[in-house]
Amino acid sequence: MMADREHSHEVHAAAVAAQSARIAMLSASADQKNRVLTAMAKLLEENVREILLANRQDMTRARNHSASLATLRRLELTPNNINSRIRALQELKSLPDPVGNVFYSGETEAGLIVEKVSVPIGVILVIFEARPHVSVNGPAVGLKAGNCTILRGGSEAANTNGCLVTLWRKALDLGGLPSDAVQLLGGDHKTVEEALHLSEMIQLVIPRGGRALMDTVAVHAKMPVLHHEAGNCHQYVDANANLDKAMRVLLDSKLTMPAVCNAMESLLVHRDLLPWCAELVNELASHGVEVRGCGVLKALVPNVVLANDDDWKTEYLREIVSIKVVGSVCEAIEHINTYGSHHTDGIITEDQATRQAFIDRVESAVVLCNASTMYCDGSLLGFGPEIGISTSRLHARGPVGTKDLTTYKIVVRGNGHTMCSEVTT
Amino acid sequence: MMADREHSHEVHAAAVAAQSARIAMLSASADQKNRVLTAMAKLLEENVREILLANRQDMTRARNHSASLATLRRLELTPNNINSRIRALQELKSLPDPVGNVFYSGETEAGLIVEKVSVPIGVILVIFEARPHVSVNGPAVGLKAGNCTILRGGSEAANTNGCLVTLWRKALDLGGLPSDAVQLLGGDHKTVEEALHLSEMIQLVIPRGGRALMDTVAVHAKMPVLHHEAGNCHQYVDANANLDKAMRVLLDSKLTMPAVCNAMESLLVHRDLLPWCAELVNELASHGVEVRGCGVLKALVPNVVLANDDDWKTEYLREIVSIKVVGSVCEAIEHINTYGSHHTDGIITEDQATRQAFIDRVESAVVLCNASTMYCDGSLLGFGPEIGISTSRLHARGPVGTKDLTTYKIVVRGNGHTMCSEVTT
Repeated sequence: MMADREHSHEVHAAAVAAQSARIAMLSASADQKNRVLTAMAKLLEENVREILLANRQDMTRARNHSASLATLRRLELTPNNINSRIRALQELKSLPDPVGNVFYSGETEAGLIVEKVSVPIGVILVIFEARPHVSVNGPAVGLKAGNCTILRGGSEAANTNGCLVTLWRKALDLGGLPSDAVQLLGGDHKTVEEALHLSEMIQLVIPRGGRALMDTVAVHAKMPVLHHEAGNCHQYVDANANLDKAMRVLLDSKLTMPAVCNAMESLLVHRDLLPWCAELVNELASHGVEVRGCGVLKALVPNVVLANDDDWKTEYLREIVSIKVVGSVCEAIEHINTYGSHHTDGIITEDQATRQAFIDRVESAVVLCNASTMYCDGSLLGFGPEIGISTSRLHARGPVGTKDLTTYKIVVRGNGHTMCSEVTT
Repeated sequence: MMADREHSHEVHAAAVAAQSARIAMLSASADQKNRVLTAMAKLLEENVREILLANRQDMTRARNHSASLATLRRLELTPNNINSRIRALQELKSLPDPVGNVFYSGETEAGLIVEKVSVPIGVILVIFEARPHVSVNGPAVGLKAGNCTILRGGSEAANTNGCLVTLWRKALDLGGLPSDAVQLLGGDHKTVEEALHLSEMIQLVIPRGGRALMDTVAVHAKMPVLHHEAGNCHQYVDANANLDKAMRVLLDSKLTMPAVCNAMESLLVHRDLLPWCAELVNELASHGVEVRGCGVLKALVPNVVLANDDDWKTEYLREIVSIKVVGSVCEAIEHINTYGSHHTDGIITEDQATRQAFIDRVESAVVLCNASTMYCDGSLLGFGPEIGISTSRLHARGPVGTKDLTTYKIVVRGNGHTMCSEVTT
């Protein structure tokens, strides 16, 4: 009971502190925000040793708690990782300010001047597991758009997250912005539930993690959610594909980083390419990939595992791929729309009409033609560093960059305009 | 139990039917959609008598059930209302197609062509009370953007809604689009709860109604919600206001349609204008408006009712206004951000710096300068007919037009692009 009250107090205090920071951020200049990003990049550089030390403590504790290899991999920071974060901060700094853009302007029949102007969203709660780099990217992408970030990281990365947030608060101070614009929330799962109820003070929640986290958010969140759900990503190799390109793109989509959400998990191949399929399976196997195939493929290559319905739905996140032979681009599209997660899906073909049908009818956030699924990345697509890949259908889809963390305001300028001439003084 | 199963079956059947309609709508041409709008306008014209008859049945039943005057007003359709709907359909038809617009296009360093293209959202559930005109506007605004609409109207308007949806389905048929793109859901509150769980099949819910409906949606909706909550709208009269303009704009904001969400409910006046306040109160009173004022106003005009804290928060929706004397534009901004509903708020001033401070710091969807709150309307602002006024912070804010009922897809075109040259065949 006592502990409950303490958590409740902590969550509320963080949200209240974020309110005054939020108001101050409304008048933060592009210059001030960039100064904070520069300061943070410098602080990361100067404190590499401290960050790695905090991370090593987390790693040791995680090992003592018998954490899985996957968790340990996500948890670990290297000097190289920190350099990537520094580069992301520099890239963000170089992007145009996403706030204050007049992206619609018009004059109405009555002579009113109407504008839509981009403004910050407000306070953003980022809930994440393990990966401590979110403690750099999250606040950075949010801050550039004038938002405040409340981070709630997994307890396994508590030391690393604590260290990084301390640096953020110093950087904000150095840039002349309120340090409460970045906060770290402790506590247990109760803390998360309580935070998810504060829709008056927290305008958006971005969850990044597994099924259990998504379910908690679905049940408790009273504010809008930018979902980052599973990426069951497909490539479809059409009858008119260039097979050399296809082989390169498929291997790249599967093998570059098998554990990330935009890795290819399922592969659809046109039946005209059946003879080529044996070659494909061999190539994948020679790179250590386990192939689970449909009946047609199994008949051709008996040593593949027969895929079941679950395989078509599964995000393996490791060196396994499901392969299905299909009769047409229509069948491929239907399969992807049915079994996919609307994340990132691609087609490999030289035929323009087929390509266009695929683009028009696959209902995914990102649709690729003749390119590796690895390209679903904010920086690589030209949107700048991302806070994650949204599988929401509204607001932001695909890589969520700083521009996606704005909303807008409609500004109407008149000169004593009234609607109803009958209401007179 | 039996009844439960039936509702469950009805909801599920409607959602399933909407799925195939949704797919068909993905390839609906602008021409086809406009043909449906034209057909619907014609059907409304031809069936005025039937619509009014159905509406009269609803009105009779509502009177027999002792419905409130407010409900009866919302429920009633007149030939004039139907003509307005017909004009809205014609206006929608004349708007550019909101689907398939490439609103971002770029080439990445690696030579990928990246586009953001507007696409339909999918299936939209519109839950509304009484007002049967939503049965015309909702599907129309949705359809123009390639969406399917499931309407769930209040039982008090069952006959009118049924009649209008039958016409929609005829119009879709005449335009060569699937009639299941517009459906009407019956059943009781259980039906609504069940529909709100179908996040796999329904992509967006738009609730239009009172507190109880909003609470149901907040508790049960598993899909994104475009909120249409209370409009506690303010005007602030600055020390540098032109008082003639101010008087006209205030009366228009309060009196044109006191029962709509963008009517002015609260009025803030700079203390330098205190002498003018007595005149203002008299003017409002002479138009039948009850004034509830702060202590300062009450001291000046003893016959005003003393406002309490609840008054500052209340959306009266009738001929009452709360008035507070404030010391500065900053105080006005803070009051609006604290007590307002972030819907529509205005300033009346001739001073540009004050105006800009107000625009920058009032956190409302629509911010007006020297104009009546009545202008918060899709058609009047140049966005076309609306489905409602969103008080959500994400996706669409203010009047929700057809363009707001699209999302986007990121299309990436490569030529065998791979990330990692090390993964080779």
